[in-house]
Amino acid sequence: MILTVTLNTALDKTYQVGELTLGTAHRAEEAHAQAGGKGLNVARALSHAGVAVLAAGLAAGSTGLQIERDLDLAGIDAAIQRVEGESRQTVTVVSRRGDAWVEIDEQGPELSLASWQSFLDSMDDVLHRTSIVVLSGSLPPGTPVDAYRRLTEMAHGHGAQVVLDAAGPAFQDGLAAGPEVVTPNRSELAIASGSRCGTLMEVVGACRKLEARGARAVVATLGADGAVATSGAQGWRARHPVLAGNPVGAGDALVAGIATSLVDGASLVDTLRVGCAWALASLQSPWAGHVEPRAVVEATPQVVVEPMTNLLAAETEDVR
Amino acid sequence: MILTVTLNTALDKTYQVGELTLGTAHRAEEAHAQAGGKGLNVARALSHAGVAVLAAGLAAGSTGLQIERDLDLAGIDAAIQRVEGESRQTVTVVSRRGDAWVEIDEQGPELSLASWQSFLDSMDDVLHRTSIVVLSGSLPPGTPVDAYRRLTEMAHGHGAQVVLDAAGPAFQDGLAAGPEVVTPNRSELAIASGSRCGTLMEVVGACRKLEARGARAVVATLGADGAVATSGAQGWRARHPVLAGNPVGAGDALVAGIATSLVDGASLVDTLRVGCAWALASLQSPWAGHVEPRAVVEATPQVVVEPMTNLLAAETEDVR
Repeated sequence: MILTVTLNTALDKTYQVGELTLGTAHRAEEAHAQAGGKGLNVARALSHAGVAVLAAGLAAGSTGLQIERDLDLAGIDAAIQRVEGESRQTVTVVSRRGDAWVEIDEQGPELSLASWQSFLDSMDDVLHRTSIVVLSGSLPPGTPVDAYRRLTEMAHGHGAQVVLDAAGPAFQDGLAAGPEVVTPNRSELAIASGSRCGTLMEVVGACRKLEARGARAVVATLGADGAVATSGAQGWRARHPVLAGNPVGAGDALVAGIATSLVDGASLVDTLRVGCAWALASLQSPWAGHVEPRAVVEATPQVVVEPMTNLLAAETEDVR
Repeated sequence: MILTVTLNTALDKTYQVGELTLGTAHRAEEAHAQAGGKGLNVARALSHAGVAVLAAGLAAGSTGLQIERDLDLAGIDAAIQRVEGESRQTVTVVSRRGDAWVEIDEQGPELSLASWQSFLDSMDDVLHRTSIVVLSGSLPPGTPVDAYRRLTEMAHGHGAQVVLDAAGPAFQDGLAAGPEVVTPNRSELAIASGSRCGTLMEVVGACRKLEARGARAVVATLGADGAVATSGAQGWRARHPVLAGNPVGAGDALVAGIATSLVDGASLVDTLRVGCAWALASLQSPWAGHVEPRAVVEATPQVVVEPMTNLLAAETEDVR
């Protein structure tokens, strides 16, 4: 079973309006709310694809109740611990034609150390049923910065593999525990490595830095420019056609695909290919985490993967 | 006691962000949530000023629970009936410097006829304790269009006076029941009267049309251009300095001021003056319905009221 951990779950609200302009009050033509936060998007994608998954996390207040109810409605197996405060909401507004949008993210409820410890304790009960643990997204205020490191260590203690998809100090701290795969985007990679990450060489150099700090493999996502995977002597680059669609949650779909590959014991190159196929497939849905297995199958041949040795000599220009 | 009726209560969320630009994800620097909908803003202003008020209305789902909890925290005496569905939310985003904003309004939950009838039945219990009834704001989908007319008739049956602050078909239908005061803004007045409402003469003519259809008095708000009050042979215009501040909820503060005047049996000219003073006072708070009694006292001398007979001969130009 795959376990996803979402410490800062959210109620993601998306409003569609006619034209979106500042300085105006708009009547929402459509309002969509779903449980979110990156880990829950991963769990939704896996559950939708029929992969056994348990979504663990924290939720608070009446927003937390809405999050739990939505997971229940979606048929996602969840182990949500109630904590104090009120879970955060994210608000995204998009115009009917999709040509304008704006997003607002709340920070999340302040987490007490007692609640955090109680969550860690509860993890022991589920980790023994788990082969893959996905740690995703931001931490609520008050969460210790070593949260992802400790969870990775606990997962390893139970023989599980870890995918870490996060940013900032908690991501960098988590590297030390040796997660099997980390999945920074270009901006997170640049911050974590202190590199510009403009050329392919720089991206690969930054991935190597994260490996040197503990990550066993790095899959760096480059948006429309594809993705790069490195692990020890191995290096692969994936490219795919630039497709229209909804990019929200594409990174979470990639993580879901990577998690399934780890379950299957796939090679790094296949892990990269599968992750990219899931990300491409997710573009077809207007909501994060809605990935159709058929769309993954169709997307797979569109992903072209090349070994890095061929590429590095040729490319010292910017990746794009 | 004043009774406010808010059929489409809302959770009003306001986010402050650094710079507000389209096509960007923003971290909310501040998030403020409060129970809203125009009638609850009126009740909040009255309660804050120490006026006896009961806030009646409908609320649904976990958003409704948040609305009820906020009323409770604010110490506002409330009689909220739970209905099916989920209460609406409004989202307003403002930039830190206040130079950019955007607002999104949900529509509200679908109201069943059974819930509506049950609310009407519950009104009998509170109307006998009420001298003034304030009917404010939009109706949830499914509410009969004669809702405000029936509530006005019920209030009159109990000897109470009615202030009706609404728009659209339900407002126009409600006029027939003879509410003591209606408070359209210029755009609502134009729609209800079919007049352009550009010149003062046109505004007064439109007010007379609403009186002909049943309203006993009309207080038409003109934003920075002040307000006009008409009733039978009487006509008054109020002007005031253009003040900076938060205009959200100023109309609701005006209605609160008018309701207190009706309790006191004030003349039309004093009702107009008091209403405008409450509206001016409300500009000082960043949130709707927070009106300081001291600010009302300070604003009152800034409102200059003139009889309309002097003005109409002189002004055939646009009001502004």
